[in-house]
Amino acid sequence: MSDNKSRFLAEFPQLVSELKDSLANYGMPQEAIDWYERNLNYNTPGGKLNRGLSVVDTFAILKGTTASELPQAQYSQLALLGWCIELLQAYFLVADDMMDRSITRRGQPCWYRVEGVNEIAINDAFMLEAAIYKLLKRHFRSEPYYIDLVELFHEVTFQTELGQLLDLITAPEDKVDLSKFSLDKHSFIVIFKTAYYSFYLPVALAMYVAGVSDSKDLKQAQDVLIPLGEYFQIQDDYLDCYGTPEQIGKIGTDIQDNKCSWIINKALQLASPEQRKILDENYGKKGTQYEEKCKEVFNELNIQKHYLEYEDQVAQQIKTQISQVDESRGFKQAVLTAFFNKIYKRSK
Amino acid sequence: MSDNKSRFLAEFPQLVSELKDSLANYGMPQEAIDWYERNLNYNTPGGKLNRGLSVVDTFAILKGTTASELPQAQYSQLALLGWCIELLQAYFLVADDMMDRSITRRGQPCWYRVEGVNEIAINDAFMLEAAIYKLLKRHFRSEPYYIDLVELFHEVTFQTELGQLLDLITAPEDKVDLSKFSLDKHSFIVIFKTAYYSFYLPVALAMYVAGVSDSKDLKQAQDVLIPLGEYFQIQDDYLDCYGTPEQIGKIGTDIQDNKCSWIINKALQLASPEQRKILDENYGKKGTQYEEKCKEVFNELNIQKHYLEYEDQVAQQIKTQISQVDESRGFKQAVLTAFFNKIYKRSK
Repeated sequence: MSDNKSRFLAEFPQLVSELKDSLANYGMPQEAIDWYERNLNYNTPGGKLNRGLSVVDTFAILKGTTASELPQAQYSQLALLGWCIELLQAYFLVADDMMDRSITRRGQPCWYRVEGVNEIAINDAFMLEAAIYKLLKRHFRSEPYYIDLVELFHEVTFQTELGQLLDLITAPEDKVDLSKFSLDKHSFIVIFKTAYYSFYLPVALAMYVAGVSDSKDLKQAQDVLIPLGEYFQIQDDYLDCYGTPEQIGKIGTDIQDNKCSWIINKALQLASPEQRKILDENYGKKGTQYEEKCKEVFNELNIQKHYLEYEDQVAQQIKTQISQVDESRGFKQAVLTAFFNKIYKRSK
Repeated sequence: MSDNKSRFLAEFPQLVSELKDSLANYGMPQEAIDWYERNLNYNTPGGKLNRGLSVVDTFAILKGTTASELPQAQYSQLALLGWCIELLQAYFLVADDMMDRSITRRGQPCWYRVEGVNEIAINDAFMLEAAIYKLLKRHFRSEPYYIDLVELFHEVTFQTELGQLLDLITAPEDKVDLSKFSLDKHSFIVIFKTAYYSFYLPVALAMYVAGVSDSKDLKQAQDVLIPLGEYFQIQDDYLDCYGTPEQIGKIGTDIQDNKCSWIINKALQLASPEQRKILDENYGKKGTQYEEKCKEVFNELNIQKHYLEYEDQVAQQIKTQISQVDESRGFKQAVLTAFFNKIYKRSK
């Protein structure tokens, strides 16, 4: 594990401890305090932590330094905001796994499948979200941008829920209807469900703390990070279909799961009536034989080539946008370049 | 329906319309806007609306007037906060019904049991909560007490979730263990799960708007409203066991559902080892024969008499407390008396 990641992880126990203390101060019985601790520890760390780490990294770039050179107090403050994003993600994932009836998450059983948890996971998800505002209040109440942080979390939470809603009603796992799909809807879903909280949120949080938060600068950040986040998710969709299990660490299941993926939406855009019929009859069905039929159509349609064209075009556009970012108020192109370089042509 | 209630209900469509507009402004496809509208309308009105109405009534008392004499703009502002409490309750109830696997709510199927909804109800619950902060931001952003309203909702939400957590791990429906029960735990559960959001929240919101929000006054309100809310819930527990179906509009099921009710906790406190054995063997089991065994023990222990003693004592204490409330900064005993009178010796 990188030093970067271990330093970030080392901040988490202190936050759990503060949250436990707040329950103890309410007079909460020990068994409930223990339950909350277990909920926090089971569901919050354990991911790649890219979102949380980005808060610290973005702040360092804005200040012309590196994460490792930040003084401890300042590091902790930024890392706390990073952990708030990880808590937000934990809140969504606990709920998403219940809604999707998933089995495992990050190499362990989904929380709602842990012995004795079951539906309590819904309330546990709520309590992961609530932790965000407890921590913000405790650590940022006296800052002039406190209300901005709170409103930003509200806004991004709502946007993510909107994306999730559209995804759920567009692509229910048990009722395939490709006429509901479209590239426009795919774009809306991935931007709202993923891009705002994964790309814009960490940068905007760091910008508020750094005092580089003119609405023009927040807009400059958003105008690049949202298409970048969309591109990231389209890569994910691509790799689910065309990545090797070694690359992506799992076997892709989007086709059998009726996912509203970029691949199927692109295919629907290009398909002849005959090809469309094959997709209608085979997409979203459990069984590799159906999956293979879909992949044959994708190959006939040269989806891989279309993906590479999309990638070239979006990468070019984003690079151009970044080069035009106005740095006069303190925002930096390097913040966006750092994100771009992590993502461009990734294979995992 | 009272004029009071119809005027309050008449405010809701405007709020739904604002929330729909905000989705339209995000570019959300129509089917998702329609879904959100249906979620809001299905789950938010339809209850007794006591919590929401209390915001308006409390404000009127603080201003020495009546709800019906408030000018329309002011009425709408207060009613909006009342609807935010109803949205908070909707958020909890949609989730609680899933966690309890309930069948009906307010005379209609629980939302998660509506055709096509199922687990999407979890995300829908999230979106009911998110509506609160959308509305607060839109209508109160420029008020000096805006952040107080936001923090109050966060705090009370967290408290309610804590109460729900303790209830869920103390009294799971499928695993009876009366050794987990106690009157202290019952008190904690009902105060956190019900009293804060149902009694303290409406009054505190009205106090902020009225400008009567010195921390001493908020504390005076809380010191009365929390025991009053506890008393209210204990009445509920009592009526579930001893109220007639005509009184309570349903047949009580607390005993068969293994509920951590005041009745069983009081009985556990008083029971002989023999009586305890009967309770251990019969409480929380489906079947009226088991329920009858428990009720026999309750009768032997004179639970009804103990309830009446508790009621007399708590009513006396609350009346004394109210009479000692300091009105010098503008808070009024009449706010608390109005609540007390609605509750004392109620039979439904």
